[in-house]
Amino acid sequence: MLLRATDPAWIQVALAKFDDVLIDHAHCEKKAAAHALSMLSSFPEVPGLARAMARLAREEAGHLTQVLAILEKRGLSIGRDLGDPYAQGLLKNLRNPREQRMLDQLLVSALIEARSRERLELIATHIEDAELRLFYARLAASEAGHALLFVRLAKKVAPDEWQSRLDALAAAEARLIAELPIRAAVH
Amino acid sequence: MLLRATDPAWIQVALAKFDDVLIDHAHCEKKAAAHALSMLSSFPEVPGLARAMARLAREEAGHLTQVLAILEKRGLSIGRDLGDPYAQGLLKNLRNPREQRMLDQLLVSALIEARSRERLELIATHIEDAELRLFYARLAASEAGHALLFVRLAKKVAPDEWQSRLDALAAAEARLIAELPIRAAVH
Repeated sequence: MLLRATDPAWIQVALAKFDDVLIDHAHCEKKAAAHALSMLSSFPEVPGLARAMARLAREEAGHLTQVLAILEKRGLSIGRDLGDPYAQGLLKNLRNPREQRMLDQLLVSALIEARSRERLELIATHIEDAELRLFYARLAASEAGHALLFVRLAKKVAPDEWQSRLDALAAAEARLIAELPIRAAVH
Repeated sequence: MLLRATDPAWIQVALAKFDDVLIDHAHCEKKAAAHALSMLSSFPEVPGLARAMARLAREEAGHLTQVLAILEKRGLSIGRDLGDPYAQGLLKNLRNPREQRMLDQLLVSALIEARSRERLELIATHIEDAELRLFYARLAASEAGHALLFVRLAKKVAPDEWQSRLDALAAAEARLIAELPIRAAVH
């Protein structure tokens, strides 16, 4: 789904300031859970969407609990959310009539999950701590499942348009990833 | 914690229009999960609050999934949120300097959980369907746990003030419950 791989320099920055990545990761899981609940509120009429989003919110809140436990063990706390220029950049691509917005939100969510999966997998592969390797490998696998879930819902709401729109949004995502400075953060 | 019992007429209305109660209940669980995430964002500095709220969000999202499954079995769907005059009424009591607001939000949350527990217990006691009796008894028990969790956090953030403020807010809650019309809804 992703048209551009993460710059290899990212994992060096991420490992060098891994505490910052962990704190950002907690915010990502929190926002993912909140986003699932808001999708449920916004588009309750799509068959299957409400239950899928409720299950997703539960899973993301579970990941959040686990990341917070890791933070606590390291004497860190989640603190204020400093914002995520990547997600903010992607959201600029949402179109406005309701039907189009729904499709775009599903596809942007799929892309964010796919990018998260790539990044968490990089952490799983490169970090030294054995416990964290396992934790991040498990999380990466579940992000992959979430990306597929959002694509499945996008196919359901726009069987004719989803593929061309995914192509366009994936191209926008790849440009954004190329443009944004590398940060000690998931995105 | 509650200074006034629910009017016995409520359970009659709730059982007569139980589908409406179920739909409202789904919205309540969704808002409870979203509220826990927002407490975590707003007050990350309170020791233990972030993890407790993440666990709570996970649990409420789990309940939401179960209520949505019951809705689906009955051919119902969650639909738009019509708003909750009870929660809106309670939120009018929040004071504004940040420290006071934090205490008030914790105590108002405790009262909402306590009231939900009372109402879900009434459903568990009076509904005929054996599966629903069990489901609502289990949910009522967990709402009781949530009320205690919020009180524990309130004691932590305001050891001197929490009791007098809880008394004042419980009195406001009792007045509100007496004033509001009876609806086929959890509150």
